[in-house]
Amino acid sequence: MRIVVLAGGVGGSRFTTGVRAAYPDAEITAIVNTADDITLHGLRICPDLDTMMYALGGGNDVERGWGRSGETWQVLDELRTYGVEPLWFALGDRDIATHLVRTQLMNAGYPLSEVTAALCSRWLAHDPRLRLLPMSDDRVETHVLIPAPDEPSGRRAVHFQEYWVRLHAEPPALAVIQVGIEDSTPAAGVLDALAAADLVLLAPSNPVVSIGPILAVPGLRSALLAGPAPVIGFSGILAGAPVLGMAHRLLPAIGVEVQAGAVGRHYGHRAAGGLLDLWVVDSADAPGAVSATAGAREGDDLQTLATPLLMSSPEATARFVRAAVGALP
Amino acid sequence: MRIVVLAGGVGGSRFTTGVRAAYPDAEITAIVNTADDITLHGLRICPDLDTMMYALGGGNDVERGWGRSGETWQVLDELRTYGVEPLWFALGDRDIATHLVRTQLMNAGYPLSEVTAALCSRWLAHDPRLRLLPMSDDRVETHVLIPAPDEPSGRRAVHFQEYWVRLHAEPPALAVIQVGIEDSTPAAGVLDALAAADLVLLAPSNPVVSIGPILAVPGLRSALLAGPAPVIGFSGILAGAPVLGMAHRLLPAIGVEVQAGAVGRHYGHRAAGGLLDLWVVDSADAPGAVSATAGAREGDDLQTLATPLLMSSPEATARFVRAAVGALP
Repeated sequence: MRIVVLAGGVGGSRFTTGVRAAYPDAEITAIVNTADDITLHGLRICPDLDTMMYALGGGNDVERGWGRSGETWQVLDELRTYGVEPLWFALGDRDIATHLVRTQLMNAGYPLSEVTAALCSRWLAHDPRLRLLPMSDDRVETHVLIPAPDEPSGRRAVHFQEYWVRLHAEPPALAVIQVGIEDSTPAAGVLDALAAADLVLLAPSNPVVSIGPILAVPGLRSALLAGPAPVIGFSGILAGAPVLGMAHRLLPAIGVEVQAGAVGRHYGHRAAGGLLDLWVVDSADAPGAVSATAGAREGDDLQTLATPLLMSSPEATARFVRAAVGALP
Repeated sequence: MRIVVLAGGVGGSRFTTGVRAAYPDAEITAIVNTADDITLHGLRICPDLDTMMYALGGGNDVERGWGRSGETWQVLDELRTYGVEPLWFALGDRDIATHLVRTQLMNAGYPLSEVTAALCSRWLAHDPRLRLLPMSDDRVETHVLIPAPDEPSGRRAVHFQEYWVRLHAEPPALAVIQVGIEDSTPAAGVLDALAAADLVLLAPSNPVVSIGPILAVPGLRSALLAGPAPVIGFSGILAGAPVLGMAHRLLPAIGVEVQAGAVGRHYGHRAAGGLLDLWVVDSADAPGAVSATAGAREGDDLQTLATPLLMSSPEATARFVRAAVGALP
């Protein structure tokens, strides 16, 4: 079986770990958001790709939830002593080695997809049927428009990482802009993976800044719809709140309620011009009086499965992934 | 008093520390060799400037003799796990922060002299009358020609760092080439410092790959000779062997004997078209029957002072520096 997963970072890696546990023999291609990428201190940093790579390669810090295990912070401490900004992005020493390798290869002209494959030849050597592809080899960066009373326009655009890490998503997001998205194309391998897929899964990652940018790469959404595979989406909103991260701060910027059903309607039912053959929500978000394990139809014909969605372990995740595949119409 | 020191790395920093101890109120400008510089893993590394900066700023590892105190090696360990070459150059985590700051500023277009001043605003803040200048803002790199039986020509050029660090200066040096030196110019501030100097000191650094490249920057040697300051050279060869480093492996490549007197003749007496007003050798190398503290003339009219030259402490170094200044003709 060939499975394509569309994924962000932390949620995406937990989800993909569960997909691997559910289907140990499947060929899994994760198409990963790169609109979170940022260049700091001359280093090209791909937080979602790295989170996926470290987690699927067993090199992530499980307790902290991001970055490398056994990480140290000597370089960052020194940058602080030099007084070099910005310092709000936590760059670990081990992590920096990844960025050095990536930056040097990219400066030498290699596309991000090849660089990612080179890095993964270390991390995913144990699982040759699992691969990571960036959504695009082109530079796309999510910027968030926030109120700025000091500016003549009253607002200011900041890089997503600054919004997320430095500002803790506290200012209201007036708009979310993917800079460069119109001119981007799917990375090498992405369209082929979609064309050959038996199953496409949207991880329960942030719909605005993780899954959103992937689907917004010109040509990607139509390739997904033209492909033979059914598409299953998984809600990252459980009982009206994101299970990870701060999606509730960003959904309003795209006019979507912080509710599992609303996110499902945002992705839309395939029959109504949307993406999904099946939308999977947590039992707590079961539409109406419907049983938590049986399929149900919403008013807009979106086929919805309600089942426990907490990714408390790879096995728990595998369970709901298999349940979803079993519930496909 | 305005003192200019021409210096390499380890020897140069010990010497300059002694000069500062000898003349606590002097304005000291060290013109530092940059022909050892190298780009590794995308980082621009200036070993001599960094050694000077760390040592004069109290941030060097005294026991190891190079690099930062409290250094760790996480990044390098990770690069090794990635299998990324080269790994023979020991890049410490703290050191890498310096290279990141430098590389980013240089990529943004700042000349090395300004980048060095920015880095030194941290390290030399305690001593505003001490400053480091690179010999040139242009890229100059020392390459060493070594035997290579596999090559059609029978020889191969390697970067000085590869010769020194990876090959431990074991292959005979057939020639030493400063790539780019003909097109280089003295860095901003260098000519002004020489024109305003009351005293110029050649540190007991390597005559071939430290002092040699500085003097070979077009215009620098003539500015030194045209300036008002007397020039004193200090021998790094004591009793027929380098007190630091491996100068004995390189002197033969420029046809100079590994003897203090021979190095002095290589720099030459000012009256005979050379550089020096005074050449200072260790007592062990006292020419002929001359007293170890009084001045003496050699056959070629090179005024030579013999005095204990071991830089065992800043005070010991200060002592012989003051003795040399006192012995100026």
